[in-house]
Amino acid sequence: MADLDAVLSCLDLNLDRSVERLKDLLRIPSISTDPAYAGDCRRAAEWLAGDLDAIGFKARLVETPGHPMVVAHHDGAGEGAPHVLFYGHYDVQPVDPLNLWEADPFDPRVVTMPDGTARIVGRGSADDKGQLMTFVEACRAFIAETGSLPCRVTIFLEGEEESGSPSLLPFLDAHREELTADVALICDTGMWDRETPAISTGLRGLVGEEITIRAASMDLHSGMFGGAAANPITILARILGSLHDETGRVTIPGFYDGVSELPDDIRKLWNELPFSEAEFLGAVGLSVPAGEEGRSVLEKIWARPTAEVNGIEGGYTGRGFKTVLPAEARAKVSFRLVFDQDPAAIRENFRRFVRERLPADVTVEFHEHGGSPAIQLPFDSDVVATARQALSDEWPKPAVLIGMGGSIPVVGEFKRRLGMPSLLVGFGLDDDRIHSPNEKYEMTSYAKGQRSWARILAALGAR
Amino acid sequence: MADLDAVLSCLDLNLDRSVERLKDLLRIPSISTDPAYAGDCRRAAEWLAGDLDAIGFKARLVETPGHPMVVAHHDGAGEGAPHVLFYGHYDVQPVDPLNLWEADPFDPRVVTMPDGTARIVGRGSADDKGQLMTFVEACRAFIAETGSLPCRVTIFLEGEEESGSPSLLPFLDAHREELTADVALICDTGMWDRETPAISTGLRGLVGEEITIRAASMDLHSGMFGGAAANPITILARILGSLHDETGRVTIPGFYDGVSELPDDIRKLWNELPFSEAEFLGAVGLSVPAGEEGRSVLEKIWARPTAEVNGIEGGYTGRGFKTVLPAEARAKVSFRLVFDQDPAAIRENFRRFVRERLPADVTVEFHEHGGSPAIQLPFDSDVVATARQALSDEWPKPAVLIGMGGSIPVVGEFKRRLGMPSLLVGFGLDDDRIHSPNEKYEMTSYAKGQRSWARILAALGAR
Repeated sequence: MADLDAVLSCLDLNLDRSVERLKDLLRIPSISTDPAYAGDCRRAAEWLAGDLDAIGFKARLVETPGHPMVVAHHDGAGEGAPHVLFYGHYDVQPVDPLNLWEADPFDPRVVTMPDGTARIVGRGSADDKGQLMTFVEACRAFIAETGSLPCRVTIFLEGEEESGSPSLLPFLDAHREELTADVALICDTGMWDRETPAISTGLRGLVGEEITIRAASMDLHSGMFGGAAANPITILARILGSLHDETGRVTIPGFYDGVSELPDDIRKLWNELPFSEAEFLGAVGLSVPAGEEGRSVLEKIWARPTAEVNGIEGGYTGRGFKTVLPAEARAKVSFRLVFDQDPAAIRENFRRFVRERLPADVTVEFHEHGGSPAIQLPFDSDVVATARQALSDEWPKPAVLIGMGGSIPVVGEFKRRLGMPSLLVGFGLDDDRIHSPNEKYEMTSYAKGQRSWARILAALGAR
Repeated sequence: MADLDAVLSCLDLNLDRSVERLKDLLRIPSISTDPAYAGDCRRAAEWLAGDLDAIGFKARLVETPGHPMVVAHHDGAGEGAPHVLFYGHYDVQPVDPLNLWEADPFDPRVVTMPDGTARIVGRGSADDKGQLMTFVEACRAFIAETGSLPCRVTIFLEGEEESGSPSLLPFLDAHREELTADVALICDTGMWDRETPAISTGLRGLVGEEITIRAASMDLHSGMFGGAAANPITILARILGSLHDETGRVTIPGFYDGVSELPDDIRKLWNELPFSEAEFLGAVGLSVPAGEEGRSVLEKIWARPTAEVNGIEGGYTGRGFKTVLPAEARAKVSFRLVFDQDPAAIRENFRRFVRERLPADVTVEFHEHGGSPAIQLPFDSDVVATARQALSDEWPKPAVLIGMGGSIPVVGEFKRRLGMPSLLVGFGLDDDRIHSPNEKYEMTSYAKGQRSWARILAALGAR
């Protein structure tokens, strides 16, 4: 414990320097989905490998057909201590709409709020650069104070998490032995609230589809053809508008195959969580839950599947007006999956649903954007118990076990391909605006996140 | 008639030079709806005023809050001959999607087709610079050959036709006396087919609306909020997808108020026109008429109202994928009006239709983009008879009287504000791709269009 105390003090004393390091990383616009930023993705990877080398890891970049992976190893000091694999991603989401940002998304700033709390604002601050740096800083302090780490640690940082992870599976298969540890630590998750850390034990899956509806072979003048020619926007709207019935249920045949009702004990656990639907929605300007009737918000976002349109585009969208019947219209649609829903079946059923609704002369093209099933982690493993205690030692309130609405496909692949369980711990907050303008990460998340990882590493090493 | 023959010869001999003049005008990117091109709109106006001055008109630019008007007068030679007002517009549509153009839209080219016919390709070639130059060239030749014109001619060229004509009404009111003639000649229309000229006697009206649907106060992560938060794209899709019922009728309450069934004699006339629905649709890659069941294509586009989505936008539309629930989604919607439909009532009924379909927490903002009622011109006036004969003298087949699916708001305003009837004659073809990439104007349209106007001016002057 003397070691841990020294490490925690070291983290406290070096917080300002750790913020500067994070800002350096945030300045690199590593938007993985846009090929224009490929060079920046590589720069971010190189920055991280260089930093890990500098603190004593053996780090390298591993090339992929897309953005490079960062892999770093440290043997640790503890004979018989577990081997942990830390996973994070250095790529970030696009920044549009840029005009809604209050400052340059890639010029990170520390902003002090009226209540005295500070936050780090910038794209990637919470998702995932700030989160992954909490772990790197914990390692840095451990090595600085003790000369080593209490566990053997492998760090694996991906650069394509925000763009469907096209290189992940071949990479895992090709580096199975090097990457397989006793447990994976995944930081891409959130706190329960500002005072309560959380361990996520359930994750929704995800299926992404892009559809393009085409009718005439060229854009048409709505005066000359309007009323007699198919309008791809109208047809797309009709299809997307019919994805849900009036009770909020998804209407695609077979969509609910594999969806179980929540077990009573889990429902009870979640109902006991201190959660205000009004506050959760109120934080983003809403007051009434949307979606399926008769289910709580937590059930909806943790244990129910969804069909959402994430983007739509067609015709003239510039200033002014243009009376065009466009030749095509496009949409990006995603499905969140729960329990045993099969991504391949969801995709196929959706495509059939669309095709069956196309009038004559109208065609559709589908483009796949990733798919992963939902996963459920055990509530009651040793690692979960150890981490729960370590987190409870650090934060004002004890750690809780929760579900999670988002998808972290790598968790399922670690299990399936490497036989490795995951521990999902992160320090994001619901209002961090990840994927949105003015993304931020609380200074408390950054500081106590570092301390939390130090505690977890120490506790795992002492087991 | 000797005069006319000389003028027609002069036009034939100078065709190449007239094409070069048109290309000069087409090189000016006078996109009126985009403020970035305001300087180019002015350049186009100055180019036209300069050309008209050079051939003997008294031309000037008249400033407006938007783009300037071009007004030019020539007294003509004929005592007692009618005074005609020629109306056209020098502004053009935007050019997106630019990647579908085979060449720079503002670098016009003469392209010879495999069948030996030639065409002028470029934005504005058909709508409306090519069309208006047919009249200017006719005047140039008349003055060159005879020293004057057979009628008193006023030329009025607008620069905001493609952006809702915001300055038109105040301008007409302020220059009522200067602009009022015996008849307006409107060139913004088309041929029946390649061999058959047409005079349009009916025009649909137009109501344009832009709607913005908003839900959360920021873009949300679909993993964190999906299933519990309203999605503006889905809501917009549902509303736009419900604008038509399964028979193609518009579902907005009151939408068909003021819509008459087509009189039997008109229906008979139109049924006798040599028109192939298969060819009309086939030219743009379609085979089956869309829209209202049980009505002919000509009835649909000339005598039935429509509701069309001309543009839609929301969420992430770039490359790759982004699992966002956007804060807002937008659409541009237009309605084509017929008979006595009231633009204000259509707009109000549409807005109510949208508002009644908004779930809790969701708001809508409307932005108006112009509105004009449909108009009907007399089939049987002297001017129509004179023009019909002149056109029939020029082209391989006799001129026909037709309806028109598009809107030319100025026609209604000339009638309402100046008490002036219009004669709608133009030489565009259905496949000219106006408002679309690779817009073109047939060389035949340009050459015989010039000759047609010479014949019409001569015939009107001789009455």
